[in-house]
Amino acid sequence: MPFDALFVPPPLREAVSDEAWLRALLEAERALAAAEAGVGVISMEEAEAVAAACAGTFDAAALAEEGRRVGNPVEPLVRALREGAERAHWGATTQDMLDTASALVARDAGVLVLAELGGLAEACATLAERHRGTVMAARTLLQQAVPTTFGLKAASWLVGVIHMRGRLERAVRLPAQLGGAGGTLAALGDRGTDVLRAYAEQLGLSEPVLPWHTRRLPVAELGSELAVAASFAGKIALDLALLAQTEVGEVREPADGGSSTMPHKRNPVGSTLARACAARARAAAAELVAAVEQEHERAAGAWHVEWGALSDALAFSGGALAWMRETIAGLEVDEERMRANISPGVLSEAGRFGIDASEPADYLGAADAFVSRALDLYARER
Amino acid sequence: MPFDALFVPPPLREAVSDEAWLRALLEAERALAAAEAGVGVISMEEAEAVAAACAGTFDAAALAEEGRRVGNPVEPLVRALREGAERAHWGATTQDMLDTASALVARDAGVLVLAELGGLAEACATLAERHRGTVMAARTLLQQAVPTTFGLKAASWLVGVIHMRGRLERAVRLPAQLGGAGGTLAALGDRGTDVLRAYAEQLGLSEPVLPWHTRRLPVAELGSELAVAASFAGKIALDLALLAQTEVGEVREPADGGSSTMPHKRNPVGSTLARACAARARAAAAELVAAVEQEHERAAGAWHVEWGALSDALAFSGGALAWMRETIAGLEVDEERMRANISPGVLSEAGRFGIDASEPADYLGAADAFVSRALDLYARER
Amino acid sequence: MPFDALFVPPPLREAVSDEAWLRALLEAERALAAAEAGVGVISMEEAEAVAAACAGTFDAAALAEEGRRVGNPVEPLVRALREGAERAHWGATTQDMLDTASALVARDAGVLVLAELGGLAEACATLAERHRGTVMAARTLLQQAVPTTFGLKAASWLVGVIHMRGRLERAVRLPAQLGGAGGTLAALGDRGTDVLRAYAEQLGLSEPVLPWHTRRLPVAELGSELAVAASFAGKIALDLALLAQTEVGEVREPADGGSSTMPHKRNPVGSTLARACAARARAAAAELVAAVEQEHERAAGAWHVEWGALSDALAFSGGALAWMRETIAGLEVDEERMRANISPGVLSEAGRFGIDASEPADYLGAADAFVSRALDLYARER
Amino acid sequence: MPFDALFVPPPLREAVSDEAWLRALLEAERALAAAEAGVGVISMEEAEAVAAACAGTFDAAALAEEGRRVGNPVEPLVRALREGAERAHWGATTQDMLDTASALVARDAGVLVLAELGGLAEACATLAERHRGTVMAARTLLQQAVPTTFGLKAASWLVGVIHMRGRLERAVRLPAQLGGAGGTLAALGDRGTDVLRAYAEQLGLSEPVLPWHTRRLPVAELGSELAVAASFAGKIALDLALLAQTEVGEVREPADGGSSTMPHKRNPVGSTLARACAARARAAAAELVAAVEQEHERAAGAWHVEWGALSDALAFSGGALAWMRETIAGLEVDEERMRANISPGVLSEAGRFGIDASEPADYLGAADAFVSRALDLYARER
Repeated sequence: MPFDALFVPPPLREAVSDEAWLRALLEAERALAAAEAGVGVISMEEAEAVAAACAGTFDAAALAEEGRRVGNPVEPLVRALREGAERAHWGATTQDMLDTASALVARDAGVLVLAELGGLAEACATLAERHRGTVMAARTLLQQAVPTTFGLKAASWLVGVIHMRGRLERAVRLPAQLGGAGGTLAALGDRGTDVLRAYAEQLGLSEPVLPWHTRRLPVAELGSELAVAASFAGKIALDLALLAQTEVGEVREPADGGSSTMPHKRNPVGSTLARACAARARAAAAELVAAVEQEHERAAGAWHVEWGALSDALAFSGGALAWMRETIAGLEVDEERMRANISPGVLSEAGRFGIDASEPADYLGAADAFVSRALDLYARER
Repeated sequence: MPFDALFVPPPLREAVSDEAWLRALLEAERALAAAEAGVGVISMEEAEAVAAACAGTFDAAALAEEGRRVGNPVEPLVRALREGAERAHWGATTQDMLDTASALVARDAGVLVLAELGGLAEACATLAERHRGTVMAARTLLQQAVPTTFGLKAASWLVGVIHMRGRLERAVRLPAQLGGAGGTLAALGDRGTDVLRAYAEQLGLSEPVLPWHTRRLPVAELGSELAVAASFAGKIALDLALLAQTEVGEVREPADGGSSTMPHKRNPVGSTLARACAARARAAAAELVAAVEQEHERAAGAWHVEWGALSDALAFSGGALAWMRETIAGLEVDEERMRANISPGVLSEAGRFGIDASEPADYLGAADAFVSRALDLYARER
Repeated sequence: MPFDALFVPPPLREAVSDEAWLRALLEAERALAAAEAGVGVISMEEAEAVAAACAGTFDAAALAEEGRRVGNPVEPLVRALREGAERAHWGATTQDMLDTASALVARDAGVLVLAELGGLAEACATLAERHRGTVMAARTLLQQAVPTTFGLKAASWLVGVIHMRGRLERAVRLPAQLGGAGGTLAALGDRGTDVLRAYAEQLGLSEPVLPWHTRRLPVAELGSELAVAASFAGKIALDLALLAQTEVGEVREPADGGSSTMPHKRNPVGSTLARACAARARAAAAELVAAVEQEHERAAGAWHVEWGALSDALAFSGGALAWMRETIAGLEVDEERMRANISPGVLSEAGRFGIDASEPADYLGAADAFVSRALDLYARER
Repeated sequence: MPFDALFVPPPLREAVSDEAWLRALLEAERALAAAEAGVGVISMEEAEAVAAACAGTFDAAALAEEGRRVGNPVEPLVRALREGAERAHWGATTQDMLDTASALVARDAGVLVLAELGGLAEACATLAERHRGTVMAARTLLQQAVPTTFGLKAASWLVGVIHMRGRLERAVRLPAQLGGAGGTLAALGDRGTDVLRAYAEQLGLSEPVLPWHTRRLPVAELGSELAVAASFAGKIALDLALLAQTEVGEVREPADGGSSTMPHKRNPVGSTLARACAARARAAAAELVAAVEQEHERAAGAWHVEWGALSDALAFSGGALAWMRETIAGLEVDEERMRANISPGVLSEAGRFGIDASEPADYLGAADAFVSRALDLYARER
């Protein structure tokens, strides 16, 4: 997409690039040969030849271009590998390699996404602790309601981020794929399940109960979790953009955000780009959920959507989280303005409940207790 | 929606109806008063008055109509309750009740959805067992590839259904909601967290770490799981519709599916309606994911999307699963046609792998082993 | 959906109800018989019998329930009609009637949606005219940028509403559908195209070049236009909700919007519900676009999505527009607050461009000229 | 996205690349200066300096990277331009340039998309003409229903393609954008509307009634049209993939589609990739529709979604159409198989309608007349 360096950090862009997918394909081919050699389906020499071929240099764009003839980039890759290693891709099908590659890409990009979640949790925890006594207005339907604390707001962000980190840790673990042309591993005779186990071990991926060529639940679930995580980053971003409004002025983003002709402006750059990333991640995830409807033993189209959609979901979810991690970590909080903005009306319900509140800090109920609960959770889950 | 009886079974339609939501709201109000009485915030008599008021008769449509003035149906309900029970809704906010109602609706509708998943699993397991020796063509990109068995196809459905049942069992458990006007439970003074715990216990719902008025992760996740489950029902439906084609004729649906003027037709009614339901469930889920971006302490719009979208996601996901449960349970399988349809080409790769396959059954690799793995999993997870 | 009276005005809910669809089906059956009698395919007496049968009373829910057997509600309806009118549905297929019904439903609901657009345009024009001299801050990325007028803001809404009204006027005109079992009108022998023309005339619908059973472009386009219109209502709602914030206070919605325990609050009810409606309309429209992928001569599922999705798109788009029409028409505008909110920085760029602006009204450029352009356009398009 | 050369033709990928966007930005800056010089706002020398600066070499990726500081790539570009041309970007705002660039990108990529639609129309017309007498089974709900002709099937594709070409021709014409910091053109004093007119003329784009910074209807509509067109390509692809099934075998795609180990397979490569492209185009379009909700005078996030989403919508819609154009143009049609596949049941309803049909060709009704209507339409619209 145009100007993607604005949205997604360079390491994450690299982790879902053509080159990363190609590396993952080569790793899958290498692991297959190694597993087959271990089980005795091919010889050690043949496996070494495959490993040597996989160490070669290939051009992802050229493979894709060449792949137009057959509808995928693996067939030309395998043809090239077989020039030096006859037993490359032995008994496997194109989708075995591409699905396994998607698992490797998800794992590697997932490390980066999870690191953003970890950093964001830390930044939220710091704010929650620091501002547990910072009173501000709670706003419902964009109207001031009753007092709250900025610490509680940050604590709620924290709880959401912890939750998503736990879910994503599990979701990024896609299983290895190996089923052969029809999902029966027929070409491996009676050694199919042995090779499958060894292959998954080689790759450090989990072994599926049976091939999942058209049982795409883990991919759709990963997409959904990424979209939910990105949208939660979007929620934090929305809060920040609203708090940073000229008329509210309770926070300022760390980024420059300057306007060349309007020096008074400090744009909420991180929040803006995080929300854009979140919208893009959601669109990609919706594609992955719809792509669950894959017919028979290999789908004519729905599967092919996944490569790009999964890459986008990872990249944009990571982009949203990265922007929020950076923004929250450097957020300028104006405690005075928070206090000054509170309208007198926020105490209007207190009397009705028999609470004598002469100022906002008198009417905070369980706010601080909730902050403690959130920080305790973080201490346990860290 | 028009003709919804076509798509969603009556009990499930009822479980997400206006009336079900109203019942859930009344249950939440009753539980709140009971919890508050237990903790000593209000008296037992006051709680009994609330319970009595909640046992009254209300008109959901009228409450909605009246609610246009304030933007929700709870305010008019509470006003009515307070005519007989002054302490109704004590210290709570509209969203506390609606969110808790959504948890109760999800739980009750969830029971029905899970029952469909259970029935579908059983039906798939039966097919997998019965047809583990029924040879047919595996089809990739809608072309015959190599042999497989219908048992393996059913086993793969089974594994997916088991997986989704486990995920949905967890996802339908939304927590109780109680936060008061700004999420601080300020109106309850220092008894807020005690009331929260008692309230969740009263309802049999889990207690959140802190109020989740704008931390909508569980709702979005439930929506996503429902969409994925519905889409997997859609995958099974797609397989069936393709197998039922005139030119393939390997299965027939149990439903009548007749055409008045074309007696030769037997339409795949269940598959057709399951796929329609799946598409609708996905749309509803996408709304729930986008609705994660809720600002501040209560959102002006994103939250209001959820009531209908969650209801739709539950109804249409359940509808898709119900159609597949019924269809798979009564499926007519034409084993002869499966065998007869196999094209000679499906053995073409066998020789290359040194396998002497003179007929399709000779080239099935791990197909039967995979069926066993699926059935073992089912035995463990049942 | 639960509490739908909150979202969609009663006449519009009625216009997409089961009953409205049933009426439209009966109108289509009646028109078919009349057209066939006119062309001489059936007798006048037979057509009168059909008309009489169509004037009977039917139960939409029961037809849907009965239709589960065959996958649609038309087959049971036709069976009932034929008890009194043998030539009912002569030569037609189920989809002919349902698609024509969708055209009639779209036309009738469309009248209501267009009326909301008309009322909204009028309300925007009134604001644009009245407030062409009301200076306020233009806000970019939620930061005050330079001065503008509230009249220009309203003028921009107006231009968008006019644009959408023109587009929707065209889009709600779905063509009549008549193709028979396979889209060839074979059952009508050589009178097929004559009947098609007469049928479309009877209904006051346009005649398609050829049957559009699986060429769903007009349905998808109508859905898209409805979603775009709803989203533009959502844009206006978003502006209003932001302007109505406690800290901004430049507008107040006419609706009560009160909170029982917090009398200081005036919630932006209309904006809130309009945005919720817009999100729901978008989801429905996305289903209609995806449903363009309909196979062969009648789709097994994608078509069945349309009935509910089109109904939802019409209802929620109309709901969003109705809420904005009502809200804009009664909007309270606080001109003093608009002026007072303007921060000094909004003039900071003026000097750079050689403009001597000592107060915001001095730095408005073409704002008033743009308002005139918008009002001129409205005068022409009214 | 990974392996995008598989999906999108190289010229179209280039037309939405970073480099294309950068060229368009430079063209917008150049045109602005030229227009301002024409109107007398800046001098001819100043405009020439801008033109010279715009002829320089820039690095889109570096601008994006640098733009992270301010949230867009234009600010760094303008800073660079101003080193050589003080009056570059005079009176404009970042969004003026990016929106105008989007109009130029849409126009240029649109030429390519429209060319694919034109080629696809021609290919469909050829099939319709050639096969107007080729009898085959019409299939409804994937069951054979009555006879039709392959010519009529192609004619229906043709009518849809013609329709979409007309709609896209209009939709790709986004207006020029010029509004300055707040949409008032204040920096241009009383010359704002003159500059706007001259600027649009310079660019060959239409002049908007007033700036459309947050009135995003044309962008959303373009996205929707692209998604609908792509989905209609997806419909054709779905038909082809089904017709190409091993068990049906009525068409074969021209692409190689071979499998290295299964020589009997001829995969429907074009249909497969077209359907994948269509799904991706729909996701991008849905983002553009949701992005209509842009607040105030410039949105903090929703606008930023558009650059990538519009690029994706153009690329994938064009990719879907290109694959179908190529596939239809080279399609192998097996007329014998079409005839042989027809099941006897397809004549079962004929007798009921008093038609004496002893073979399928006797029961075609208006099929040929419809083909003529489609070809006549094509002759008129070409």
